[in-house]
Order: sequence, then C-alpha cells, then structure tokens
Amino acid sequence: MSREKLVVIGGDAAAMTAASQVRRGRTDMEIVAFEKGNYVSYAACGIPYYVGGLIDGLDKLLIRTPEEFQKRQDIEARVRQEVVHILPNEAKVVVRDLESSREYEEPYDHLLIATGARAVRPALPGIDSQDVFGMTSLDDAQALRERLEREKPKHAVVVGSGYIGLEMAEALMRWDLDVSIVGRAPQLLRSLDPDMGALVSGALADEGVHLYLGEAVTAFEETAGRVSAVVTEKRTLPADLVVMGMGFRPNTDLAREAGLPLGLKDAVKVDDHMKTTLERVWAAGDCVETVQLVTGRPFWASLATVASKQGRVAGTNIAGGDASFMGTSGTVILRAGPIEIAHTGLSEADLSCDEIPFVSAKVDTRTLARYYPGSEPMSVKLIAERGAGRLLGGQIVGGGGAAMRINVLATALQTRMTIDEIARLDLAYSPAFSSVWDPLLLAARQLCDRC
Amino acid sequence: MSREKLVVIGGDAAAMTAASQVRRGRTDMEIVAFEKGNYVSYAACGIPYYVGGLIDGLDKLLIRTPEEFQKRQDIEARVRQEVVHILPNEAKVVVRDLESSREYEEPYDHLLIATGARAVRPALPGIDSQDVFGMTSLDDAQALRERLEREKPKHAVVVGSGYIGLEMAEALMRWDLDVSIVGRAPQLLRSLDPDMGALVSGALADEGVHLYLGEAVTAFEETAGRVSAVVTEKRTLPADLVVMGMGFRPNTDLAREAGLPLGLKDAVKVDDHMKTTLERVWAAGDCVETVQLVTGRPFWASLATVASKQGRVAGTNIAGGDASFMGTSGTVILRAGPIEIAHTGLSEADLSCDEIPFVSAKVDTRTLARYYPGSEPMSVKLIAERGAGRLLGGQIVGGGGAAMRINVLATALQTRMTIDEIARLDLAYSPAFSSVWDPLLLAARQLCDRC
Repeated sequence: MSREKLVVIGGDAAAMTAASQVRRGRTDMEIVAFEKGNYVSYAACGIPYYVGGLIDGLDKLLIRTPEEFQKRQDIEARVRQEVVHILPNEAKVVVRDLESSREYEEPYDHLLIATGARAVRPALPGIDSQDVFGMTSLDDAQALRERLEREKPKHAVVVGSGYIGLEMAEALMRWDLDVSIVGRAPQLLRSLDPDMGALVSGALADEGVHLYLGEAVTAFEETAGRVSAVVTEKRTLPADLVVMGMGFRPNTDLAREAGLPLGLKDAVKVDDHMKTTLERVWAAGDCVETVQLVTGRPFWASLATVASKQGRVAGTNIAGGDASFMGTSGTVILRAGPIEIAHTGLSEADLSCDEIPFVSAKVDTRTLARYYPGSEPMSVKLIAERGAGRLLGGQIVGGGGAAMRINVLATALQTRMTIDEIARLDLAYSPAFSSVWDPLLLAARQLCDRC
Repeated sequence: MSREKLVVIGGDAAAMTAASQVRRGRTDMEIVAFEKGNYVSYAACGIPYYVGGLIDGLDKLLIRTPEEFQKRQDIEARVRQEVVHILPNEAKVVVRDLESSREYEEPYDHLLIATGARAVRPALPGIDSQDVFGMTSLDDAQALRERLEREKPKHAVVVGSGYIGLEMAEALMRWDLDVSIVGRAPQLLRSLDPDMGALVSGALADEGVHLYLGEAVTAFEETAGRVSAVVTEKRTLPADLVVMGMGFRPNTDLAREAGLPLGLKDAVKVDDHMKTTLERVWAAGDCVETVQLVTGRPFWASLATVASKQGRVAGTNIAGGDASFMGTSGTVILRAGPIEIAHTGLSEADLSCDEIPFVSAKVDTRTLARYYPGSEPMSVKLIAERGAGRLLGGQIVGGGGAAMRINVLATALQTRMTIDEIARLDLAYSPAFSSVWDPLLLAARQLCDRC
C-alpha cells in the first residue's frame, strides 16, 4: 500500500510552513514540494539588507535547504521544477523539469497551492535591460549586490513608492549612491494617511533621497546597450541602475486554469480552513484572498506573517486537525533611513471607500522621556468608529522604538477594543523606554475627546 | 462668596496630575497643593539616569515648577509646607511651614491625599551616615552625584535587589566603581520567576556586578566617621558609599490618624473613583491600595503610571465628572546593563499563593531575525490558567527591543485574552524588528500545547 501523498506547489513561507506542520501531525504522509526557482524556504524580507550590505552572505538568508528538509523532516523539496498544470479531475499535477524541459505527472491525495505573488513589471521600453533589477529572488539580490560592488554606479532610481521601494532606497543609500524614488502615487506608502506619509517623505528627503511622486515612469532610456536614464511623465532622470519595487500581484494562473474561483486582485478564494472549492485542494500565502479582520471584508496583502500563519493552518487541516485563519489587520513595519514606520488596520482613505464613519487623532510626541538621551520625535495616529469608539486603525512614524508599539494596536484590533479601553491600558514606563503617558495613551485620550 | 477649594497633600505624579485635571474641568475652583519637599512635579524615575551621568542637570528632571503651575494653570503649589494633621470633622488640614516651623490651618471643600510612598530604611547601625544614600528625592540624587564626581569612590554597595537596586547598580557602574548588590531575597527582581531572574543575574554578573543574594545587611561599619564596609549575615564588603534600594511602603500616617481604613501594606482603601470612606476626601497614587486587574484582588505597587492614571481619575471626579480606575496588571520595565527586563500580571509564585491552577512556557529565542545585525537573545515566559487558557502573566528578558513587547501582554491581560488568541495575533514583522513568528507568538504557541 502506497503512502498518502501531499503535493505542494511552491517552496517559500506558506508552502514549507504547511509542509512542516503536516509532518508534525502525520509522520506517515509523503510530502513533495515543487519550486521553480533555485531555492526553497528563504528569507525574502531580508533581501534589502543583503543588498545594502548589512548582511554579508546570501547563505544567511537561506533558512533551510532541500537537503535539510529531506534529512530532518522527510520532506522532499524539488527545486527548478515548475508545476505547469493542475489536473483536479485526475488528482495530478504536470511538472516541468527546468533543467531538462521534460514534463512529468505527479499524483496527489492532497494538493496545496502556495504559488505566492509576482512582482508588477509593466511592459515599458527598456524594462528587459540588464540594468533594471527585479527584487523578488535571491538571484536578483545577488546580481544587484555584485553590480553595486563591481561597477560603483552613481545614480540609482527606485520605481515604486511602497514599502519595498523604501527599503530598497535605504539599501542603495548605504552605497553612497544618488538615489531617487519615482512613484505614480501622490505620496510614499499609500497605506498611510497623507499627514503621516508626509513625515516619511520629509525624513527621506532629509537623508538626501530625491522623491518624484505622482508621476509614472514611461520608459528606460538606453545608451550603448546600457540604461542611462529613467523617463517619467514629467522629466528624465539619469540612472546607472534601476530597481523595480512596484508591488506584487497574486500568482494564480495555475489556479485559474484549474477552475478555482478568484477574488480580489485575482487571488484564490479559500475558506477559513484554507480549503479551496475543489476537493482535497488547499491554498495558502500570497496567492490567496484573505479577510480584513477589522471589517470582515475581502483583503489581499503580500505579508510573510500572513503566509506563515496560513501555511500553518493549512498544514494542521491537511494533517487531519482543525485550525482556522481569521484574517489579518494588515500589520506592516519598516525602517526607512533614520525613521521607523508601522501601520495596522484601516486608513482614512480605506474607511472613506468603505463608507464607515470615523474620527481620528494624531499626536506628535516623543519615543522616550524628553530628558532621556536618544529621545526622538514620534507621531501616532489613531482612527476609531464615530460614536462607538472602536479602534479601526493606527499609524506610527518616529525614531528608534516607535514602530513596534504598533503591536499593541494590532492586539487592540483583534480584541475589538474601544479607544476608551486603550486609554486605560497599563503600558510600561521607564524613562529609557517611554514617557509616563505612553504616546499610544495620549493619542487614545485625545481621540476619546472627539468620539 | 469664596471659591470652592481643593487642598492636595503632596506634589508629585498623582497630586499634580489630579490638580491639573481638576483645573481642566473647573476653571473656578481654588487649588492648593502642599509639598513638604523642595520640588513639585519631578521625574523621580529619572534619578538613576541623573546619578549615572546620562542626564546632565537636575533641572532636566523638573517637569514643572510652582511658578509654572501658578502662571499656566492657576494652581498654587506650596513647597516646604508639610501637612501634619487632617481634621475631617472640621474639613481642615494643619500645615507646618518647614522654614518657620509655624503651623496654620487650611480649610478645604475637597481634599486629595497623595502622600506617596516612603523608602524602606531599617534602623541598622550606621544607617544615618552621610555615606548611606537614600534614593527618593532630587536632593538625594544631587548629593550622590556630587559625591561620585568629587570623591571618586572605589567601592559601592547597593542594598536591595529590586528594580530600584538594579537601576542604581547600573548607574554606579557608569562611574567605573566596583559595585555590589546585597539583597535578602534569594534572587534579583522577585516579581520574576527564578528561571527568568537567573537570566538577569547572569547578565549583571557578566557586567562585573557582584551579587550577594539571600543575605541581609546587619550593619554599616564606620571608620573615622565614614562608612568603610557593609556587614551582612555572611560577610563584610568594603564600601565607600552605600545606596539604599530596599523598596517603598505607602506613606499613610496622616490618613491613619484621620481614621481612614487601611489595606494591603497599610495603603489607604479607596473605591474605583478614588474616593475614601470620608466625605469629600479622595486619595490617589502610591499611598492607596489598588486592584490587581488579573485577579481582582487587592494590590499595591509604587508605579508612576498607576499614580498618574489615578490622579487623573481623582481629578475628573473632584471636578464633577465620572471616571474610574479599574486596577493595574503591574506592568514594569527596566534596563539593567545590557539587558532589558519587563513583566506584567502574575508570576508563578503569585499564583501559587493565590492557589490558581496554571501552566507556563518559556521560549529562548531572539529579538530580531537571526541573520540581522544586532539580533540578540530574548526569553519570553507566559503563564496561563490551566484549562481555560486565559493569560495570567508574562515576563521578558532580552536584548534591545525585547522589553517593550510586554505592552502586548498588558493589553492581552486587560482584554482577558486566551493563549490561543494571542498565538493568532497579527504582530508586525520585518527582519529589522522581529522574526516572522514574533517571540510572543512562539511562546503562546508552546503554551497552547500545554493548556
């Protein structure tokens, strides 16, 4: 009798977390993961720090190799094997070996689709140049870092004003380049409200990053086979290299072809157990639509935290357990130059779209007691439901120690706390860590007065 | 017609927060605060950092002077005026002017008792020496700092192994002294469980602090009118100066004499509106008994956060509003040498006393992604109700960025979250701030398996 078999499409956070979780629950099951790239289970979020030189070797970003998966967990992870079709009626996938181009079929008892997301890469003139770098794989990262070390380029342009764009701009600044960010959106980090986004723009401009916002890139100009400039709707910027950071979209061509219903941004629809509409077919990670915890509405974001949690839930259920994923408040944290940025829940723009009545308050205060060395400016913005006072979202921009306070707000969102309850929180105080009234308490108090 | 009048006994956090809050609600009321010391509204928690040289001038710790209270808020703060009796039947207090020793009566319509806490100072031989420093007033702080600057002492002994003792030991280490901590308790920071306390002891020992725990001080030996050694039950330690950090007790002689019922550690009993049993007499801050939020049982701690919140509640109510203080989970945070420490809620020892069945889990992990520069060890211990899984307490010891995570646990305690709910939290991740599975999530997950 052959072993029951799980096939996983993908080899990163959701895929390998699920595989590991299945193995914890089921020592008997055969587990095979197909990854079209060269690596499985790598820390994609660490790429900007490798490019920036904060991390020496690319190997530091490899969490676990296929050999380790095999040896420690009896999980077979096959790299450079691309699943090209799902045949749900036959309970099989068709796999292409990217070395030999040979195709073969692999039957499954359970299938997990964890195909992730792909970077947005518009078909602009010049985009296929060797000087235009994507930022999704370790290979991309290595190529960019080698370029920085070898050619000492002078002008870099980052296309995209979201968090990947910011992290990449910071990485490039470490190489003493002249760095520009070009973005179609009118501000950096669109998930922040404009007043908070302006704090980020101000800090980056102080660092010497040139910002060209509200203008789209139209072409990459080439001279003698190399990129020499980025052309926008309004200007031409000199560029020796370009980094694309225009965000991601769910990678769901396979799922669509297999007949799975797609939702927001064409992400695969799943239930709270990560089950698709097809029998014994599951999906998790960046390729699925999830739920915004605050509103209960469909939501999509490319977040390692969400992918890992969903992978764990899928794995538990595939192994015969019972776990659910309730959604995400979309908590994001990042550092850009000298400042920390975080947000969770909904922004004023989100709420205006959803037509939910809200009030908001922004306080400009400090990370630590004013007299304590290293105390830096910090702004907190809280948004609550008008009347009922339930917290709907929070945004933080500030110096060292500011951003991790977002976790209190993420906790408050999950437990549906009101602003009044937040104002009472017994948050920690010592001059080396905070002020007696933590900035979150001050913001909540101010918002109470408006609710 | 004379103005309605509030008399406040005390001039620090609870007292002046209440006075300010009354003024916000009632522009007409006369407000007089009597402070027996030289200063009002100072940052007592900043004293160790002034002593340690991290803060230049004592003036940095003065939040607001009597002149500023008068000018900005029409609040009269009289320093060096000690209230020596409360006469509730006559609605008066008797005040002694410490300059002239003259006594006078002051009538009140409302009275707020905010007499704070006093340092424990046992009647040991030699304790009145000029070389044995208390650590409760700015005058103490100034005297100690001058001594450190002028005499360059070699050996310092801190008596007391609680958080004041630790902060003072750290401050003294900055002066390149040989520093010892002597404490009667068998471990540092008794509010931590022994396994977590051991991490703190280890880190301090690595820094070169000598720890003599589980032994009481019996005398301060003097030679030619100066302290030369600290004598314990087990040994004699050379000492040029001694800092007392044996903790605090509620300062409630006045309240007792006035007939107010006292509770835990002789703290004044109040209701959730900070009202005492006497008509128009309120009390707030370190002098009152409060409620442990987790158990609902009586609790006392000397915490600036609690005093400030209680002062605000008392002030709102005195002004005719309606506010309540629900209790505290006893959140504490501090830095000792290179490590950060925080706890909230109940420890295993607390729970054993209260006979509440519990389970606990401790995880040893890291502050940041393992590959990110500056990632340091971090341990989290969570304690939950056996069966139901409700969080009862949390403790954190670790490197930079570890301790402020306690605020998530304080929030979880207030909202009565279960370990299972904590394990689902959408906490922030970026390699520069955390690991994909935040240490809190890992600890909660591990505890789920035991519940």
